[in-house]
Amino acid sequence: MNIGILGTGGVARAIAAKLVSLGHSVMLGTRNVEETKSRSTGDTMGNVSFREWSQKNSAVTVGTFSDAAAFGTMLVNATTGSGSLPALAAAGENNLNGKILVDISNPLDFSKGFPPSLTVSNTDSLGEQIQRTYPKLNVVKAFNTLSSPLMVNPSLVNNGDHTLPICGNDAEAKKKVVSLLNTFGWKNENILDLGDITNARGTEAFLLLWIRMFGAFQTPMFQMKIVK
Amino acid sequence: MNIGILGTGGVARAIAAKLVSLGHSVMLGTRNVEETKSRSTGDTMGNVSFREWSQKNSAVTVGTFSDAAAFGTMLVNATTGSGSLPALAAAGENNLNGKILVDISNPLDFSKGFPPSLTVSNTDSLGEQIQRTYPKLNVVKAFNTLSSPLMVNPSLVNNGDHTLPICGNDAEAKKKVVSLLNTFGWKNENILDLGDITNARGTEAFLLLWIRMFGAFQTPMFQMKIVK
Repeated sequence: MNIGILGTGGVARAIAAKLVSLGHSVMLGTRNVEETKSRSTGDTMGNVSFREWSQKNSAVTVGTFSDAAAFGTMLVNATTGSGSLPALAAAGENNLNGKILVDISNPLDFSKGFPPSLTVSNTDSLGEQIQRTYPKLNVVKAFNTLSSPLMVNPSLVNNGDHTLPICGNDAEAKKKVVSLLNTFGWKNENILDLGDITNARGTEAFLLLWIRMFGAFQTPMFQMKIVK
Repeated sequence: MNIGILGTGGVARAIAAKLVSLGHSVMLGTRNVEETKSRSTGDTMGNVSFREWSQKNSAVTVGTFSDAAAFGTMLVNATTGSGSLPALAAAGENNLNGKILVDISNPLDFSKGFPPSLTVSNTDSLGEQIQRTYPKLNVVKAFNTLSSPLMVNPSLVNNGDHTLPICGNDAEAKKKVVSLLNTFGWKNENILDLGDITNARGTEAFLLLWIRMFGAFQTPMFQMKIVK
């Protein structure tokens, strides 16, 4: 499958590399292709420079947000929270309509340091904002509750036995996303469909707890497992 | 130990019955003692009437918020979110100062139906509001992330192996609360101290996810276990 990923950071790279390893064709979308490709320094999260990453992952192509959205039959939003709506606007509604968007983003506000707060929460969510802005896009919120190494390799903790909440308005879209997640190593019994996209209020709010557990553990390599 | 519990609903009753079974003396605090004692109908959450419960739990005494706060050497806030600050005001600062308050409350707003939103969240929390209002009270946020049967009997799910986040400013207070939780069946390795009371923003925000999982499962008998 051709998959377009909006974003070039750690999450976008982890998903892209996994998809390529599974035989998919992947294009990353960015605001300024030349600037991204020439970036020679790593980021504050410990990711290597894009140039270095790209040399090791040469099968992943890079284009504008519009290029990546046009390329993908399925799309992934791996931009920052504040970058999501601008990236989708740059992608262009015509390149989005009728497609599935796996929305991983979290509306984190680091302007006052760590731990961040959320720019939208409680009675609304970024997932809903995206869905409202693009009613013909099938937004499936997923993967926003855990660290990127675990998204693409769930067996890294507890033999892969932990819980991934997802939500979205379109049942068929969720089914297709779950099929893709299965190929990442996620078992159906660990994928929890909460219902429509308003449930992104729950999964995004979880970040307010996640980020504090991250602070307590000093590692992002943990996950929530729902036990009954 | 003498323990005063603010509230007479399902959470207050579960904690009270458990404490009595462990040999503690318990007084429940309520706004109007006579009204509470004479209540002969159950509530919408499936709890029996207070009169019926009280007959079966006659060791638990009932007084005003002020009586219960004066009685307890340790206190528990098991009122609703909207009732918490009024209950503490009625309890009286002199009856609170220097004591530990285990704060179980969640600032849930059901005015627009299910699922509820939070009346305070993201950049503040009810736990912090209580701590700010009563700086000489040692607030320990705990138990607000799970259903009351599990609070007092963690072994009801996954053999008791699941995670209880707590937070609060005072290390000694948290140590005393953890000791009490141990007698409820909580193992130290499952109690996660997140740090100071600002972390209540995380544990209270979790309710936005919890309530949706409750909706999906149609039972509150589940818990979060953090796996690493």
